[in-house]
Amino acid sequence: MLAFPIPRRWNRLMQPEEHEVLKLERAALARWGAGDPSGYLEIYAEDISYFDPFHKERIDGLAAMTELYESLRGQVHVDSWEIVGPRVQELGDLAILTFVDVGQCAGKIWRWNATEVYRRGPSGWKIVHANWSYQA
Amino acid sequence: MLAFPIPRRWNRLMQPEEHEVLKLERAALARWGAGDPSGYLEIYAEDISYFDPFHKERIDGLAAMTELYESLRGQVHVDSWEIVGPRVQELGDLAILTFVDVGQCAGKIWRWNATEVYRRGPSGWKIVHANWSYQA
Repeated sequence: MLAFPIPRRWNRLMQPEEHEVLKLERAALARWGAGDPSGYLEIYAEDISYFDPFHKERIDGLAAMTELYESLRGQVHVDSWEIVGPRVQELGDLAILTFVDVGQCAGKIWRWNATEVYRRGPSGWKIVHANWSYQA
Repeated sequence: MLAFPIPRRWNRLMQPEEHEVLKLERAALARWGAGDPSGYLEIYAEDISYFDPFHKERIDGLAAMTELYESLRGQVHVDSWEIVGPRVQELGDLAILTFVDVGQCAGKIWRWNATEVYRRGPSGWKIVHANWSYQA
């Protein structure tokens, strides 16, 4: 217990390793790489907005994300992955988590730029926006 | 003047056309397409984090962004561009603006997924995170 609690600061930059959202992300990514999209679906907010390189439009809402991810269930397999250079910008009840996801699959290496915006609510941290993008 | 002011709601979804951040974005993008990066530099926060497809790491901070953008001054020319499907998720003093930027240059068409996270502060709305990414 802290004798002098640390005040919550506007735009506090926390050590990412300490941050709850990074733990959530690791857990969801581990399940994703084993073909289980539920790790993400469980932490996506109802009002999520989502970008990836494979769709011409943004995907909006948990129902649409569920439809997309269920169509991929059991089809994703990642040999190994690593979250590189995570940063958390915490702003009130929002936390912007950014990192490079270096994944390996069938001898190929993929580098993704990942943005995950989390909102803290009654049921914990949920992702309200995601942008997954290739590096050129 | 409104007799019954609309209460500020958590996660209010505004009509994007009405939102200040969309106006800021249009103005910055217009200058960018004419070779002037200052439109963005003026609305980037000190603690900005930034992704694009051309860098292996995230770029952090206004100083680094200034260095990058100054190296591109006068070199960008876009024939036409359009902000497609803008959405603003306003969450307290944060606003997540997402859209597809359809640009045309020398006969080529580019589709970008754009995420711009704005924070409202004493000097107005500033971008604290940007993720610009190609569509596959």
